[in-house]
Amino acid sequence: MKIIVQKYGGSSVADVEKIKNVAAKIEKKIKDNLKLVVVVSAMGKTTDNLIKLAKEITSDAVPREMDMLLTTGEQVSASLLAIALNDIGVTSKSLNAFQAEIMTTADFNQARIKKLKTVKIKKLLKEYDAIIITGFQGITEEGEITTLGRGGSDTSAVALAAALKAKCEIYSDVAGIYTTDPRLHPEAKKLKYITYDEMLEMSSLGAKVLHSRSVEIAKKFGITIYCGSTFSDEEGSYVMKKNIEQPVVSGLSVMDNQTQVTLSSLPLDYTLVQKIFEKVAKEGLNVDMISVISNSGLNISFTIIEEKKSHIEKAITQLLKDMKDFNVHFQSGYTKISIVGIGMKSSSGVASKYFNALEKIPLKLVTTSEIKISCLVEERYKEKAVKSLVEAFDL
Amino acid sequence: MKIIVQKYGGSSVADVEKIKNVAAKIEKKIKDNLKLVVVVSAMGKTTDNLIKLAKEITSDAVPREMDMLLTTGEQVSASLLAIALNDIGVTSKSLNAFQAEIMTTADFNQARIKKLKTVKIKKLLKEYDAIIITGFQGITEEGEITTLGRGGSDTSAVALAAALKAKCEIYSDVAGIYTTDPRLHPEAKKLKYITYDEMLEMSSLGAKVLHSRSVEIAKKFGITIYCGSTFSDEEGSYVMKKNIEQPVVSGLSVMDNQTQVTLSSLPLDYTLVQKIFEKVAKEGLNVDMISVISNSGLNISFTIIEEKKSHIEKAITQLLKDMKDFNVHFQSGYTKISIVGIGMKSSSGVASKYFNALEKIPLKLVTTSEIKISCLVEERYKEKAVKSLVEAFDL
Repeated sequence: MKIIVQKYGGSSVADVEKIKNVAAKIEKKIKDNLKLVVVVSAMGKTTDNLIKLAKEITSDAVPREMDMLLTTGEQVSASLLAIALNDIGVTSKSLNAFQAEIMTTADFNQARIKKLKTVKIKKLLKEYDAIIITGFQGITEEGEITTLGRGGSDTSAVALAAALKAKCEIYSDVAGIYTTDPRLHPEAKKLKYITYDEMLEMSSLGAKVLHSRSVEIAKKFGITIYCGSTFSDEEGSYVMKKNIEQPVVSGLSVMDNQTQVTLSSLPLDYTLVQKIFEKVAKEGLNVDMISVISNSGLNISFTIIEEKKSHIEKAITQLLKDMKDFNVHFQSGYTKISIVGIGMKSSSGVASKYFNALEKIPLKLVTTSEIKISCLVEERYKEKAVKSLVEAFDL
Repeated sequence: MKIIVQKYGGSSVADVEKIKNVAAKIEKKIKDNLKLVVVVSAMGKTTDNLIKLAKEITSDAVPREMDMLLTTGEQVSASLLAIALNDIGVTSKSLNAFQAEIMTTADFNQARIKKLKTVKIKKLLKEYDAIIITGFQGITEEGEITTLGRGGSDTSAVALAAALKAKCEIYSDVAGIYTTDPRLHPEAKKLKYITYDEMLEMSSLGAKVLHSRSVEIAKKFGITIYCGSTFSDEEGSYVMKKNIEQPVVSGLSVMDNQTQVTLSSLPLDYTLVQKIFEKVAKEGLNVDMISVISNSGLNISFTIIEEKKSHIEKAITQLLKDMKDFNVHFQSGYTKISIVGIGMKSSSGVASKYFNALEKIPLKLVTTSEIKISCLVEERYKEKAVKSLVEAFDL
C-alpha cells in the first residue's frame, strides 16, 4: 500500500466547484493505485470570518474558545470533500482531530504536535481510498481542542507524512516557491529546489508558502515536500535536504508594517539586555532584527510588527520604571527586505554585492545570518530596493 | 449546587448581538446563585446553509459525512457564547459532543441518545459558572459523530436535565406553547400547562415547538420543561405530567403538503395490509392517518407527505406487481388539521362538536386517538376549517 499525503489550502477548497476539482485530482491518484491521506484547510475566508465574528463580541476572546471556534472551518471542508469524493465513487471518510488523534501541547492558538497515532488511519486506508483530515488542529491529552497557528495545516500534513513515512504534496493557488512573492513581483522566478534551511529563513521572513514549523518537521524527519498548484499541472518546487541547483541567493522576501524600537543611553549593564528580551518573551511578543551596540552606554534596537507597538511600550516602561535618563524611541512605517540563500555560506562577496545594490537607500538596521541578510528601510524605498536586489542577484 | 439546564434555539443566537443578549440572560441566573448547563443550536440559518452547500455537490450525500458537516454549526455558536460569557465575567467553557461524552446510537442523521456521562460536567461546574454544550449531536462508541435529527437540541437539553436531575428551560422566539401556530393564526392562545401526551400529539402533528423525542424523555424521567421566550420576560408554558388547568381541547395543529394514497378493490386478504405497511416501513417512509375498511374487498387509505409520492408509488407497484384489478390512487394538495387534548378522554361530545364545526367542509379522511381527532381536507378549505375549530373549542 503506497500512501501519499496531500494538503489543499483554503483557496483550493474555497467553494463547491473547487472542492469538486480537488476531488477529481484525488480520483486521478487513486486510479494510479495510490492511497491518499488528504489534509484540508478551511474554505477560503472562513477562518477570517470566524475571527471577525469573535472580534465583534470582544477583542480579548479566551484563546481556548477561539480554538473551539476556528476548528469548525476545517471540519466543514473535510466533510464536504468526503461527500464529493464518495459521490464520484472514491470511497473516503473525513476525520477531525479527535478522530485522527492528533495530539498536541495545550498552547491554545499555537499548539505543537506531540504525537500522531497512525494505527487508525492505516486501518481505515485498507477500507477506504482516501482519508480526509482536518488540518490546523489537534487535541490535548485532556481532550481540549487546539490549533497550530495560522498556516498550521502545512504542519499537519508534513507531520502525517513523517508518521506514515509517506510523500508529502502541498497544493495551493501558487505553483511552487518563488524567489519573491509572484503576486507582488511578476518578475519573480520559480525555484525548482530549495533546502530546508533556506525555506525556514524564507518562512520566518514572511514568505507565505509554508508554515515554518512544517519545514522544521520535514527537516527533522527528512521528508521532501512538493509544493504545487491545485489549478494547473505546472511543475512545482521541492523542499529538500540538498539544493540540487544550489544558487548563491535563492530568494527575496519583503515584510511590511515594521516598527523599529530603539533604546539608547542605557547604563552599561548586560543583564539589562537579558531582562528586556525575557520580559518581551514572557508577554508573548515576537521581536526580530535584534541589534545590540555598546560604547559609553548600551544601545539596543529591534523590530516588531506595528500593531504590537503599544503592547511593547507598556512592557518596557513597566520593566524600566525605576531607571532614568534613557530614551525609548519607536519608528514605524518600515519594511524589512531580506535575501536568503544556502549558497551564501560558501560564496564570498554576497554582502558587498548586497550593499552595493542598496547604496542609494538609507538602511535603518541590518542583520545577517549565515544564509540571510536583512535590512530595514522606509516603506517609500521598498520598490526601489526590491528592484535593485532582484537585478543584482538575478532573482 | 443548584443546576439549571437551558436551551437556546437558532433564532436566539442568530447573530452576535443576540448571543450577547443570551449571555446577559445567563448572567442574571448566575447572580441568583445558580449553575448553568446551556445547550445551543446553530446560529440562525447555519444548518440550512450547510445542507445547501452539500446539495450543491450531490443530492445523495453520505449520511455520516452530513453529520460531520452539520455538527460544526453548534460548535460555532457554543464557542461564541462562551467567549461572550467570559467577556462579561461569567466563567464558562464550551464542550462539543466528544468532550461532553454524549453517547448515541450509530444512526446517522437520526441518532438516539444512549448514555450521558455527567461526571465531567459536574466537575467543571465546580470550577465554572456555566458549561455550554453543543446541542443536536452526539458520538458513537467508535468515535463517529452523529446528529439527533432536526430540532434535536431540545432532546440534548432534556436528556442533560434528566441526567443531572435539573430543571429544564427551553428558549426560542416564541413565548411558549400555543393552541395553534401563532405566526399563522394571531388569535392563537398560549397554554400555561400542557401534558406530555398532548405535547407529543402536537409535536407529531407538526407543531414545531419541541422535538418529539425530547418530550418522550421528559415523560420517561418526569422532567418538567419550561418553554419561554429568549426576547421577553413574558411567562411561558410548562410541559408536565398533569395539566393543572385541564381544558378539554388544548391545541390545534395544521400540516400542509399531504397526499392521500388509496388502494381499493384489493382481495380480502388481511396479510396484504401487513405486507404493505412492512414494505413502506422498510423503505424508511412515514405514513400517517391509516384507515382500513373492508366489505366485499379491502380498501386501504393513508397519508404521506407530498414529496415522498414517487417513492411510495414505486414501493407499492413493486410489492403488488403480481396482482391485478386493484386501484392505487394518489391525491395531493391536502391539509391535515388536528385537535388535541387530554381532556377529550373523559369529555363526551367532543367528536360531535368537531363534526358540527366542520359540517360544511368535505372531509377526505378522519382518524382519531384517545386524545386527538385529525381530518384531511383540500387546502382551499384550510382557513375555514381552522377558523371553525378555533371558535368551536375556544382555542
